[in-house]
Amino acid sequence: MYKFRTWAKTPPKGWNSWDSYGASVTEKEVRQHAEYMEKYLKDYGWEFVVVDIQWYEPTADSSIYHAYADLEMDEFSRLRPAANRFPSSEEDRCFKPLGDYIHSLGLKFGIHIMRGIPRQAVHKNTAIKGTDLRARDIVQPNSICPWNTDMYGVDTTKPGAKEYYQSLIELYTEWGVDFIKVDDIADSKLYGAHLAEIALLREVIDESGREIVLSLSPGPASLEHGAYLEKHANMWRLTDDYWDNWAQLRDMFDRCQKWASFVGEGTWPDCDMLPMGHLGIRSVDGGGSDRLTRFTKDEQETMMTLWSLFRSPLFFGGELTDLDEWTLHLLQNERLIEIHSNGRNPEEVYRDSEFIVWKTETDSNRWLAVFNVSDEKAESERISEKLANIVSISKHDITVSKDTPAKDGSNTIPAHGVVLFNY
Amino acid sequence: MYKFRTWAKTPPKGWNSWDSYGASVTEKEVRQHAEYMEKYLKDYGWEFVVVDIQWYEPTADSSIYHAYADLEMDEFSRLRPAANRFPSSEEDRCFKPLGDYIHSLGLKFGIHIMRGIPRQAVHKNTAIKGTDLRARDIVQPNSICPWNTDMYGVDTTKPGAKEYYQSLIELYTEWGVDFIKVDDIADSKLYGAHLAEIALLREVIDESGREIVLSLSPGPASLEHGAYLEKHANMWRLTDDYWDNWAQLRDMFDRCQKWASFVGEGTWPDCDMLPMGHLGIRSVDGGGSDRLTRFTKDEQETMMTLWSLFRSPLFFGGELTDLDEWTLHLLQNERLIEIHSNGRNPEEVYRDSEFIVWKTETDSNRWLAVFNVSDEKAESERISEKLANIVSISKHDITVSKDTPAKDGSNTIPAHGVVLFNY
Amino acid sequence: MYKFRTWAKTPPKGWNSWDSYGASVTEKEVRQHAEYMEKYLKDYGWEFVVVDIQWYEPTADSSIYHAYADLEMDEFSRLRPAANRFPSSEEDRCFKPLGDYIHSLGLKFGIHIMRGIPRQAVHKNTAIKGTDLRARDIVQPNSICPWNTDMYGVDTTKPGAKEYYQSLIELYTEWGVDFIKVDDIADSKLYGAHLAEIALLREVIDESGREIVLSLSPGPASLEHGAYLEKHANMWRLTDDYWDNWAQLRDMFDRCQKWASFVGEGTWPDCDMLPMGHLGIRSVDGGGSDRLTRFTKDEQETMMTLWSLFRSPLFFGGELTDLDEWTLHLLQNERLIEIHSNGRNPEEVYRDSEFIVWKTETDSNRWLAVFNVSDEKAESERISEKLANIVSISKHDITVSKDTPAKDGSNTIPAHGVVLFNY
Amino acid sequence: MYKFRTWAKTPPKGWNSWDSYGASVTEKEVRQHAEYMEKYLKDYGWEFVVVDIQWYEPTADSSIYHAYADLEMDEFSRLRPAANRFPSSEEDRCFKPLGDYIHSLGLKFGIHIMRGIPRQAVHKNTAIKGTDLRARDIVQPNSICPWNTDMYGVDTTKPGAKEYYQSLIELYTEWGVDFIKVDDIADSKLYGAHLAEIALLREVIDESGREIVLSLSPGPASLEHGAYLEKHANMWRLTDDYWDNWAQLRDMFDRCQKWASFVGEGTWPDCDMLPMGHLGIRSVDGGGSDRLTRFTKDEQETMMTLWSLFRSPLFFGGELTDLDEWTLHLLQNERLIEIHSNGRNPEEVYRDSEFIVWKTETDSNRWLAVFNVSDEKAESERISEKLANIVSISKHDITVSKDTPAKDGSNTIPAHGVVLFNY
Repeated sequence: MYKFRTWAKTPPKGWNSWDSYGASVTEKEVRQHAEYMEKYLKDYGWEFVVVDIQWYEPTADSSIYHAYADLEMDEFSRLRPAANRFPSSEEDRCFKPLGDYIHSLGLKFGIHIMRGIPRQAVHKNTAIKGTDLRARDIVQPNSICPWNTDMYGVDTTKPGAKEYYQSLIELYTEWGVDFIKVDDIADSKLYGAHLAEIALLREVIDESGREIVLSLSPGPASLEHGAYLEKHANMWRLTDDYWDNWAQLRDMFDRCQKWASFVGEGTWPDCDMLPMGHLGIRSVDGGGSDRLTRFTKDEQETMMTLWSLFRSPLFFGGELTDLDEWTLHLLQNERLIEIHSNGRNPEEVYRDSEFIVWKTETDSNRWLAVFNVSDEKAESERISEKLANIVSISKHDITVSKDTPAKDGSNTIPAHGVVLFNY
Repeated sequence: MYKFRTWAKTPPKGWNSWDSYGASVTEKEVRQHAEYMEKYLKDYGWEFVVVDIQWYEPTADSSIYHAYADLEMDEFSRLRPAANRFPSSEEDRCFKPLGDYIHSLGLKFGIHIMRGIPRQAVHKNTAIKGTDLRARDIVQPNSICPWNTDMYGVDTTKPGAKEYYQSLIELYTEWGVDFIKVDDIADSKLYGAHLAEIALLREVIDESGREIVLSLSPGPASLEHGAYLEKHANMWRLTDDYWDNWAQLRDMFDRCQKWASFVGEGTWPDCDMLPMGHLGIRSVDGGGSDRLTRFTKDEQETMMTLWSLFRSPLFFGGELTDLDEWTLHLLQNERLIEIHSNGRNPEEVYRDSEFIVWKTETDSNRWLAVFNVSDEKAESERISEKLANIVSISKHDITVSKDTPAKDGSNTIPAHGVVLFNY
Repeated sequence: MYKFRTWAKTPPKGWNSWDSYGASVTEKEVRQHAEYMEKYLKDYGWEFVVVDIQWYEPTADSSIYHAYADLEMDEFSRLRPAANRFPSSEEDRCFKPLGDYIHSLGLKFGIHIMRGIPRQAVHKNTAIKGTDLRARDIVQPNSICPWNTDMYGVDTTKPGAKEYYQSLIELYTEWGVDFIKVDDIADSKLYGAHLAEIALLREVIDESGREIVLSLSPGPASLEHGAYLEKHANMWRLTDDYWDNWAQLRDMFDRCQKWASFVGEGTWPDCDMLPMGHLGIRSVDGGGSDRLTRFTKDEQETMMTLWSLFRSPLFFGGELTDLDEWTLHLLQNERLIEIHSNGRNPEEVYRDSEFIVWKTETDSNRWLAVFNVSDEKAESERISEKLANIVSISKHDITVSKDTPAKDGSNTIPAHGVVLFNY
Repeated sequence: MYKFRTWAKTPPKGWNSWDSYGASVTEKEVRQHAEYMEKYLKDYGWEFVVVDIQWYEPTADSSIYHAYADLEMDEFSRLRPAANRFPSSEEDRCFKPLGDYIHSLGLKFGIHIMRGIPRQAVHKNTAIKGTDLRARDIVQPNSICPWNTDMYGVDTTKPGAKEYYQSLIELYTEWGVDFIKVDDIADSKLYGAHLAEIALLREVIDESGREIVLSLSPGPASLEHGAYLEKHANMWRLTDDYWDNWAQLRDMFDRCQKWASFVGEGTWPDCDMLPMGHLGIRSVDGGGSDRLTRFTKDEQETMMTLWSLFRSPLFFGGELTDLDEWTLHLLQNERLIEIHSNGRNPEEVYRDSEFIVWKTETDSNRWLAVFNVSDEKAESERISEKLANIVSISKHDITVSKDTPAKDGSNTIPAHGVVLFNY
C-alpha cells in the first residue's frame, strides 16, 4: 500500500556530518567517512553517508549560519553544491560525482535540504523549471524557518508548487541521492508542522520512481501527527537537536515510550544522531566544541541499547576516521544489530524512579533491557527479583546475555547503565 | 508478557444498558437482553451483558443522577446492588444470581464501577476489609468526579488503598464478573487521567487470578497516555459520551486515524456504544429521550464499518427486545464481523473533504472502505479512479464487495455512506 | 514623569485612510480629507489626518498587498512615499509638502509604518545612516510580519539598531509628522508583542525632541502587557482589525470592560477606526467592498457612545467628502465630545444578557449609558428601575439626556441601541 | 456608585493569625494580639484583627488540616466557633464576645470563611435558615476546594442560595464582624475564579447594611478578572500563599507592575500577609516552622516599601507579643505610612536586571523608591545618574529621604535593599 515503506524495511544506519562539522563539511571529509564506513561498518549494515545542511553555502565554516549569505543556485531557483567545498561538483556536475563515488563503495548517498524555496530566488524572482512561473508565484510569503535565513516556504496550493518540488527530486535523482533529510518541516516553533509540504514531497518522490528515503526534521514531532507522519515519511524526529548529555538521554526514554506504537516496517520515529567519539570539530551547537563525547561509556551503552530496541534510525555523529576501538566495537555489536534490525514489538514494560525496562523479541530470543536511570549503582538481587515479576517467569530462566555490551560480570548495573537479559 | 491482553484477543462485543436506561436498568431488563443476545447474537460473537452505572442506587430512574442519594453499601465500604431493582441480589447474594444466569446462557457478565470509595463511606468512616483502617485513611480527600457525587478518589500511596481495591475485585469475583467498565478514570475535566488508580486496578486484577476485562472511561483519553494505557487496560475511550448525530460520527474518523497505531491484540481503543435502534427509554443523555436512533441507515452502515475496521469494541446501546430486522442483520453481518475479529493493521489511507478511505486485510482478502463524508451523493467513476491511485493497482482489480452493507448496486456512495471494496 | 503622555492629553481624533482605501490612498485624496476636516470637524476637535500602510508601494491599489513589490527606498534603507501616488513628494521632498499643507489647515499629520527594516534593504544590504553598518548588521533575520512581506524585524541589541530608528524619526521630523501608527508590533500571531522594539521607538522619539504621538498596532494587545504599554505608548489596539458588524461591536464591550483601568491621561487603549459612512472604496478587508456601513444607525450610536465613554481614540474610517448629514452630526455631537474629552473614571457598572451600563463623570454631570445589547427593543419601565438600583438613587433623579443621540422620546431602547442618562 | 469602596478608603492594615498559628489560633492569642495592636500600632493606623481559617474546627492544631473533621455547626448549616478554642463563644454567643472586646479597644474584627456550605451539612442534609429548603437543595455537588475538605460550593442559581449567604452575613453582623476574608474563591486550581459566588456575596453584604470589608483569596487572581474584581471586592490576592523567601518577594515586583492600574480608592490588589518577626509558631506552611523570619532586614525594608508604594493591604503575619524593636519601628515608619495611606498613582517607572524603580506622590512630596534587586551592593554614582534620566530633572534635586528606612548614609543600596528619594 505504501511503497515507500519498503525502501527502509529496517531502520536506516549511517553517518551524518552535522555533529562534527556543522554546516561546513567538505567533499574530502565526506569521502573519507565513506571510505571508513565501507571498510569497518558496511558489513554491519551501516550504509548511508549524509551531507547535512548548507552544502550550497560557500562561506559556511561552522554550525553558525551566515545570515543572508549568497547561496549557490541554478537558473531554476534550485540550490547546488558550493564548488569551493565540493570540487567535483564543478561544471554543473553538482553532486553526481560524489554520489557515484559513494555508490562505488556499495554505500548510499544522502543530503539535507530545507523546506521551501530560497529567499534569494524570491527576491530575484527567478524561474521555476518546466513552467512559465517564477519564484514569487509559488512562495508562501510569510512562511520562514525560525532559525535559518535560506528559504521561504512554498504555497502548495499554487500552480507551479508541485513542478518546483518535482524539479528538485529530478535533480537529486540525477545526482543519485538515496536519502533526503528535509528540515524545518516536522516542527516549527512558529507554525507547528508543515503537513501540506510533507504531502507534496511524498507525492513527487513517489511519482519520480526513485526510491529516496524521506527523513523529516526537526523535532519534536507532535504525537497528534503520528498517524499522518507514518503515511508520509520513513523517519521523523522525536526531539529538537540531541546532544551528549545525560538529561537529554534520560528524556529520550519518555519519548520512546510514547512513540513505540508508531515503530513499524518502513516508519521509524527517529532519536536523532549518536553524538559519540570525536565531536564538534567545526561545530559549537549543543553547547560544545571540539571534544570527545561527554557521555560516559555506560551512557553510550544505554543510548545504543535504547536506540536499538526502539529501532530508531542510527546515524553516527562523530568523526569516523579517528574512531577508537571501544566505540567501533559498540557500533559493530552483533546482538544490538540483531535487535535493531529484527526486533519485534519493542515496548517499555516497567518504570520506576530507578529502573526502566524495555522488552523485545527476535527470531531466536526474547530480550529484556534493564536500564539503571538513577545516579547510583544498582545491586543484582533486586534486579532479578523485579524482572521475575515483570516477565512472570521464574527468575532462574533469566540470564544475562553473554555477548552484549552493558554487562560487567558482577551482575550489577552501573549508574546510567544497562544490562541486557534473555528470557 | 501482558497476560491481560489475552483475555480480549478480539475486540469485545456486547450490550450495555446506558444508552437506553441511563442509571436505572432493572434485573428483569438485563435478563431479557441476555436472553435475546443468546438467541440472536451469540453465534455472531456478541457475548458481554453489561450493567452500567449506579446499580447500587435504589432511587435511580433515568440518566440524571440524584445527588447524594443513599447508596446500597456493605460494612466494608463496598457498593452492592439495590435489591429493589435487582431482586435476586437479596440476602447478600448481590450479583451472583444474575451472573450465574448470564453464564448459564453462555454469555459474560459485566458491570460498571466508579473510581474511588463512596463519599458516604468517608463521611461515615466505615471499615476497609482485611485491615484495621477506615475509609478516611485511604481517601484522597479533594479528588472527586466532576459529574457524579457517589465517590471520592482513593490515595494509592496510603496503606489500605490496595486492600480496598482487592476487596472489590474479590467481591466481583464472587459475583462472577467478567468485565468491568471503570468510570471517572481515563479522563477528568478537573484532573486529567488518574494513572495511579489505573495501575492499582491492573495490579489487583492480575493478582486476583480472575480474567476480568478492564475497560476505562470516560474519554477522551489523551494520546500522550496511549503507551501507558495499552500496558494497563483492554479498552479505553476516545471520546466523551457518543450519541446518534452525524457531527460526532464524523469526528470519530479523526480520532480513529490518530489512535490506529494503538489497536492491537488485547488493547482496543474504544469508540463507545452504538446508539442504534430504540434508544433513550429512560435516558435523556445526549440531548435525546425515548426515540429511534437519529442516524440514517447510511450513517449506521458507516458507523458499523468504521468501528469494525478500526476494531473498536462493539457494545450495542439500544433496546434489543424490540430490535428491527434491518438493524439485527447489520449486527449479524458476517463480512464486518470477519473484518472486526481478524482485520490486520487497519489504517486510514486517504482523506479529502469528500472521501475518507480505510484499508485492512483478513486472511482471505484485502479491503478498502470508502466513506463519503460529504453531504452529497458521490458518483462511481470518480471513486474507482481515486481508488486505483490509492492502492496502486489497476482499477479493474477493485470490486465492490457483494455481501456487505453499504452497497447499492449503482456504484455510487450515498451522503454519509460507505462502500466496501476488495482488491 | 512620562512626557509623552502630555502629547495626547485627550484621546486623539482624526481620519485614517485604511477603511476606505486600503493600502492605496493618494495625495489628492488625503488633501481632500484634510480640507473636509478643516471645514466641518476641526472645531469639534478632530485634527489628525493619517496616511495608512504602504505609501511607499508604487503599485498598491487596494487592501491586498503585492508580495515582494519593489518599494520606494532611500540610500539609508528608509522607505519614502511613492511619487506616482504622492506627486508633491518628488525630488526628495517626500512627505514634507503634504505635511506642510495639513499643518497650514491647522491640522496634524500622521503616517503608518511597519516595525523593522525593509526586506529589500537586507537582501541588497544597504547602508544605515550615521554608521558604517549595513542592513544585515541590524536585522533580526527570522523575525517577519505574519501578513505582509515588506519588512524584517530589527535586533535592538545590535549596534546600529538605535541609529536606524533614529534616522527614521529624523526623517519623519523633517516631514512634520505628528503621529505614527506602528504596525506589526503590539501583537503578532507568530511572536506575541515586540516589546524591545516598542521600547527603542519610545527612546528615540523622546530623544528626538519632536512630540510625535505613538500608536501601536495591531491588536489584540495582551492585558499582561498593559502596564508596559502605558509606559511606552499613547495608544494601543484592543482587537485585530475592526469592521462594521454587530458581532465585533458586541465583543468590544468585553474588551473595554477589561481595559478600563488602563485609560488615563495620555494612554488610550484603542478600539480601532470607526467604519461608518461610505467604506471600502478600494478595500476588500473585513469581508466588504465599496459600500455604505453595514451598521444600523442604532449600532452607530452605540459605537460612538461606547468609544466616547471609554475614551478610545476616534479615527473615522469612511470617506469624508461624501459624508451624509446624519453621520456628520454624530461626529459633531457635543455631549459625546464632552464625555470623550473630559470624562473621568469611565467604567462598566452593570451587565446582564440584555443590558450593559457604563458610567462616567464630567465637570458638570454624571452620566449613565444604558446599552441594549439584545436583539429586541427594551421597555422604559424596566430600565429606570434597574438604573435606580445601580446608582442607588431615586429613579426620579435620572433623566434622559436631552441633547444626546440615542434617545427617541418614547423612553425605550432599540435593539443594539443606547440611551444616555444624567443623574 | 460602589458604596463598598468607601469602607476601605485606604488600604486596610492589621494582623492575621495564619502565618503564626495556621488553623489553630485560640481566643487567648487573638486577645493578646488585639491588646498589643491597641497599645503599639493603633496610632499608626493598624486596626484589623483577623482570625484565619477553621475557627470552627475543634481539633485544629497547626497549618495541616484534619480531613473530614467534625465541624462546629448550627442547625442552619452555619459554622460556629469551636468552644474549646474560643471559650467566650459558649452558649450560642459565638464570636460576639470576642468581637465586642476587639471593638472595645477601638479596633476592628475580621474572620476567614470558606466559599460554600459545609460538606457535613450536605451529607446530613441540614436546614437553610429562612426557607423550607435543605443543604442538598443549594449545593453545587461537584464543586470542592482543592486543598481542604470543609465545604462544597453553592449553586447560586438555586432557590435558597441567596438566603443561605444572607444567613451567614446576618450571623456575622450579630458577631460584629467588620472584615471577611473569603477563601477558595478568587482562584481555584480546579475551576478558576468563582465569579458567581463573589457576586452573590457582594449582593448580600450590600443589602445587609453592615459595612464589612470583603477580601478574596487565594491568588493568583487573573488579570482578566481585574475589572470584575474591582466592582465586587475591596481586596484580592495576587499570588498563592506568600512566604519569607527572596524568590517570592522578587516575583511580587512583576505582579505589582501588572496590577498597578487596578489600585484605587476602596479596591486594593493584595500582596498577602507580611511574614516578619517570629513566625510559624504552630504552622509548617511555606516550608517553615517555628522561626524568625528568613528575610534579611534589607529584604524586609524592600517588602514594606513595595507594599506601601503599591498600596497593598498590610497584614502582619508574625507574633506580635514578642516583637523586636527594629520590626516594630518599621511598622510605625511614618514616611511609609504616609505613602501607603495617601500615595497617588503609584507606578513602576524603570526596570533593568539590577534596579527596579517605583514612583508615587503624596500631598507634600514626590517619591522614588530605587530597589536593588541584584545580589550585589550598588554604588551611589550610578544610581543618581540613572534617576536623573528617569525623572528628567537635575540630579541635584534628588535627595535621599532622611527619615525613611532603607538608607545607610553611604548612598549605596544593599543587595535586595531599597533607597527612597524625594524629588
